Amino acid sequence: MANHRFLIEYDGTGFEGWQQQRDGHRTVQGCVSEALAGVVGGPVTLMAAGRTDAGVHAEGQVAHAHFETRIPLFALREALNARLPDDVAVLRIDAVPETFDARRHAQSKLYRYRLWNRAVRSPLHARRSWWVRTPLDSEAMRRAAQPLCGKHDFASFQAAGSNVKTSVRTLLAMTVAGEPGGEVLLDFEGDGFLRHMVRNLVGTLVEVGRGRRPEDDLARVLAACDRRAAGPTAPARGLTLVCVRYPEDMPLPPAADGTPPAKHT
Amino acid sequence: MANHRFLIEYDGTGFEGWQQQRDGHRTVQGCVSEALAGVVGGPVTLMAAGRTDAGVHAEGQVAHAHFETRIPLFALREALNARLPDDVAVLRIDAVPETFDARRHAQSKLYRYRLWNRAVRSPLHARRSWWVRTPLDSEAMRRAAQPLCGKHDFASFQAAGSNVKTSVRTLLAMTVAGEPGGEVLLDFEGDGFLRHMVRNLVGTLVEVGRGRRPEDDLARVLAACDRRAAGPTAPARGLTLVCVRYPEDMPLPPAADGTPPAKHT
Repeated sequence: MANHRFLIEYDGTGFEGWQQQRDGHRTVQGCVSEALAGVVGGPVTLMAAGRTDAGVHAEGQVAHAHFETRIPLFALREALNARLPDDVAVLRIDAVPETFDARRHAQSKLYRYRLWNRAVRSPLHARRSWWVRTPLDSEAMRRAAQPLCGKHDFASFQAAGSNVKTSVRTLLAMTVAGEPGGEVLLDFEGDGFLRHMVRNLVGTLVEVGRGRRPEDDLARVLAACDRRAAGPTAPARGLTLVCVRYPEDMPLPPAADGTPPAKHT
Repeated sequence: MANHRFLIEYDGTGFEGWQQQRDGHRTVQGCVSEALAGVVGGPVTLMAAGRTDAGVHAEGQVAHAHFETRIPLFALREALNARLPDDVAVLRIDAVPETFDARRHAQSKLYRYRLWNRAVRSPLHARRSWWVRTPLDSEAMRRAAQPLCGKHDFASFQAAGSNVKTSVRTLLAMTVAGEPGGEVLLDFEGDGFLRHMVRNLVGTLVEVGRGRRPEDDLARVLAACDRRAAGPTAPARGLTLVCVRYPEDMPLPPAADGTPPAKHT
């Protein structure tokens, strides 16, 4: 059956994550699959590049699905967005090779974590950031994060009780950008992420920024391969999956309606 | 009684505007007054610089209230924010002269309207912008807006059925800033605004941006002094009261906790 790549944006606040669950749970996969099944007819399985947790947002989640339809893809997108609730939208749909797999073929994912670092919480930023009122030393956080880049066993930053073959991942890039008394943005680009990995990295770096953990502690935490060595899990609301990158040999064609090339190509 | 100036931020989505109404309506004035009364004891009247409509947001609404309290003002702010719901917060409280009136002494107000101008709606921007899918010519909108600056009778842009002494207002500055295929921001600074005035100006300018109204039409619309000459009212969700400015002789002292000087000083 014809394969399709979806680019999806959502506000995670009202969802119990990406992954479809038993009835009664509102998930992104559930909402989009249901809308898609309604338009193309029959059940459709939508597989994402990254299964975001409850409360995590996405500017550019990527998923693939096999189905047949005579509806042009730009019209299919319109039909889906008309059916989908306000907090999720399909930004584009492209025809892709039969073998394309959103998760397996992803080269890297970029996550952004937002910290609202002021004395007072912000109602207008509350849904998308973690309010940390203690002034953070973002320069110390930036320096502390240096040992994280590269290929490491991130077991210390993996959710307790995870069961994956290996906890070795490569963090390709990591930046900390902060304005004093404003927002601190932490970007993580990696070839893959363990469950809660970004949020545990952020929780640990915030301890450094608060002066509660030494700046040179991260190498030790990595080496410990023990969840207890790292800091607490930062709240989901601050996390956004910005984009998923694929190898150059899988370019997306321009969308039928002239939408500019997506960030993830 | 001692007079106090409040700087307030809110996400207007869940409020039926600023102005307190009969029971059962959730308003910003109602929420903050109730929290304040609970902390300082006894009923308190909180008067705002601008009574924002249902769905309109504020980054820096200003209000004043007379009451006596022995609680230091920074501790009062903390106590209020702990009681207030997530979608409203008091950013600062300052002691001001007995005679200070947030509305009457305001020199100008700055409103910002956000247009999301892409082919697909954005779940992450939905709460704070109006989605206009037709590509807008923001340069034409900028040129069309020129006749609006200055002192004019804005009767054409006033909500039908309004009952004010005069519909003459001065628009001190107006800017239109747009990225092609992205967000268009319209800023309006004025000495006062009629009911729905910004939203009616935006609705009319969007008709210009869409090519449905000639670029040189605004002078004619102003001169008509007739609501029917202008375009439709843009939705409330795109509008934010950014700040209220006061004369130089009413400076705010720095906040007790070292919060940087507020934008409206």
